[in-house]
Amino acid sequence: MTNVSGNFQAPTYLAQVEQWGLQEITLHSTRHYDNPFTEVQLRGHFRSGEQEVVAEGFYDGNQTWKVRLMPQIQGRWTFDTSSNDPELTMQSGSFDVGVPGPDNHGPVTVQGQYHFAYADGTPYFPLGTTIYNWLNRDEKLELRTLATLTNSPFNKVRFLIFPKYYLYNTVEPPLYPYPLIGERTLSPDRFSGELFANSVQSVEEAFDLSRFNPAFFAHIEARLRELQTLNIEAELILFHPYDSWGFSNMGAAHDEAYLQYVVARFAAFRNVWWTLANEYDLFGRFLGDRMKEEKNWDHLFQLVQKLDPYQHLRGIHNCFDWYDHSKPWVTHVVIQHQGKELYQVTLDAKKKYSKPVIVEEYGYEGSIPFEWGNRSAGEVVNLHWEVTMAGGYGSHGET
Amino acid sequence: MTNVSGNFQAPTYLAQVEQWGLQEITLHSTRHYDNPFTEVQLRGHFRSGEQEVVAEGFYDGNQTWKVRLMPQIQGRWTFDTSSNDPELTMQSGSFDVGVPGPDNHGPVTVQGQYHFAYADGTPYFPLGTTIYNWLNRDEKLELRTLATLTNSPFNKVRFLIFPKYYLYNTVEPPLYPYPLIGERTLSPDRFSGELFANSVQSVEEAFDLSRFNPAFFAHIEARLRELQTLNIEAELILFHPYDSWGFSNMGAAHDEAYLQYVVARFAAFRNVWWTLANEYDLFGRFLGDRMKEEKNWDHLFQLVQKLDPYQHLRGIHNCFDWYDHSKPWVTHVVIQHQGKELYQVTLDAKKKYSKPVIVEEYGYEGSIPFEWGNRSAGEVVNLHWEVTMAGGYGSHGET
Repeated sequence: MTNVSGNFQAPTYLAQVEQWGLQEITLHSTRHYDNPFTEVQLRGHFRSGEQEVVAEGFYDGNQTWKVRLMPQIQGRWTFDTSSNDPELTMQSGSFDVGVPGPDNHGPVTVQGQYHFAYADGTPYFPLGTTIYNWLNRDEKLELRTLATLTNSPFNKVRFLIFPKYYLYNTVEPPLYPYPLIGERTLSPDRFSGELFANSVQSVEEAFDLSRFNPAFFAHIEARLRELQTLNIEAELILFHPYDSWGFSNMGAAHDEAYLQYVVARFAAFRNVWWTLANEYDLFGRFLGDRMKEEKNWDHLFQLVQKLDPYQHLRGIHNCFDWYDHSKPWVTHVVIQHQGKELYQVTLDAKKKYSKPVIVEEYGYEGSIPFEWGNRSAGEVVNLHWEVTMAGGYGSHGET
Repeated sequence: MTNVSGNFQAPTYLAQVEQWGLQEITLHSTRHYDNPFTEVQLRGHFRSGEQEVVAEGFYDGNQTWKVRLMPQIQGRWTFDTSSNDPELTMQSGSFDVGVPGPDNHGPVTVQGQYHFAYADGTPYFPLGTTIYNWLNRDEKLELRTLATLTNSPFNKVRFLIFPKYYLYNTVEPPLYPYPLIGERTLSPDRFSGELFANSVQSVEEAFDLSRFNPAFFAHIEARLRELQTLNIEAELILFHPYDSWGFSNMGAAHDEAYLQYVVARFAAFRNVWWTLANEYDLFGRFLGDRMKEEKNWDHLFQLVQKLDPYQHLRGIHNCFDWYDHSKPWVTHVVIQHQGKELYQVTLDAKKKYSKPVIVEEYGYEGSIPFEWGNRSAGEVVNLHWEVTMAGGYGSHGET
């Protein structure tokens, strides 16, 4: 095969981006790969004055690769690429980064030990709600959820990347994160009560885990942008145990490839927070040789820390046992606590870890016949008040 | 320059689409063009049994061309392409078209002379509202509008493609349909009262009309899909006189290129209706050598009729003088009438044209100090009732 240099395509990107906005370098290669996700490495090197950012690229389908940047300083930036594909490597260009728009205060970071602020110094007081599966249900419900958020006071939402299978959530999602191999045996329409045990096929039988489905991730990105427009922070929950597909149970190599792909795609969105898992401690109880114990979570945490050029906030959500939040890769303490003494528990967590504390699950408002989702409005106000008076932050949810 | 056939990229497309869904064939070329919008022709030929659809392709930026199809019958389809670019031509493939989803009844067509139905026979009773500039204001307002539509009874919305400049709408849009050349002199923030006369630069001074901005059109498409999800028909208003940029005044060649691009991109969305213009008759009153008179509208109407493989509904909206709706390319009568005798006017229009009648502007609900936007809720109900009792359809609006 001959490479005709005149045929190479120049990269495309915006000439002007705002500070903490999103720059995207799009590149093409005509080369054929059996698996472009695994065979091609691509990296962008971005520079402005003393600042250098190295960002991993990703394959977006359709012979297209992308590298994204969230520029943290204003001024002239230059970039070049490196890759094992001769058409993707040594591409370069420059662009200008200007003042942020009026509602753009940058990403949220820890401020004053126990609190939060945007990168420009504006204080940020989290008032979150929970919409675990909103992106993996039918589109009408998704738009109704977006409509509700548009008219709500919430400035943070928690949601899952992988689809959820649990009580009240037993449908197949419109899109899968990985390409299907052959026929998917559908999820049972009634939850058996056993976590992890609902998958009717092994994950490798149903999906090609060595490739991603770019449309699944592009869909999430469109909503990340809209949440940004609404000034809502997006807490992305990277793994969870409410599973009928096997995505909680892919093995270490696929977990790592997934995190790499997710961080390459999403880290440049300024409103992203990483939550390693929901109810992380359940992964160690029910799985066999693929269980994730605290040492595995340590490793995945560190991988995100290493991959993310912007050091977005990182936490992890428990069911029974708390993770050791004193570990250096944990930026803030996330607690599920539905027992008594919430004020004291919050206060103790602050003292123990010297980090901001968010009680993300003190019991959801609602009237279902389960302890986790039967709080009255009055109880919710009381619980939220206890957390707030202890100098923590509460997160809301409704069943 | 050598062309290495092994370097050619295969087209990408969905293996399975539902009837009246959207198939998109994506193609790449590595060839360099000074202007890929004007230098490259691309056409898709789609076949299934006896049915053949010829669809014009379009340049989507980034060395990427696309051809779209809304398949009207189920079964196996094949396609091939023709182009003056050797990398885009003679590409081929096949895919399956299956049963439509539960909310997909196909495009709306005229039924029973004066009424409407979806392609699958389900009756369609238009109850529209007016959101002229929703896609060209700030994104927050756009999301609030979408949120309102999500919780509203409306099954049709009327909106402009080009940005609007008029009383209460004097801002620059986030995106332009054409690339800017140099600096845009911003619109005055106070409307002078004169239509067409607010452009501070000639349109050619500010914009390169020989190229489109694909992001502007992709943004509209994302909303077309969401309107589809909400079962809302999208009446696209192709030209209008509330202009501070000169898009009402581009000259015949650019008008035609614009229609070609718009139809190539949007016609495959089943919920699209074409409205040639809002207040079409104003274009003939104030413009010089570029005025559009009835004969020009005839021509533009016929161009849309010729380009659109699916024959979506076509109408035109007046200010004072009615267009001759008996012309064969008009599928339904659109009326602005804010005077008396709305019942009789609707009845007469039905008799005169033997087509469905939609009164799209009988006066908007609101309290602004202008006749066109000061109807009380009670008046609106009365006016809508008069139209309905005459066997026509009314369209709502709020100021």
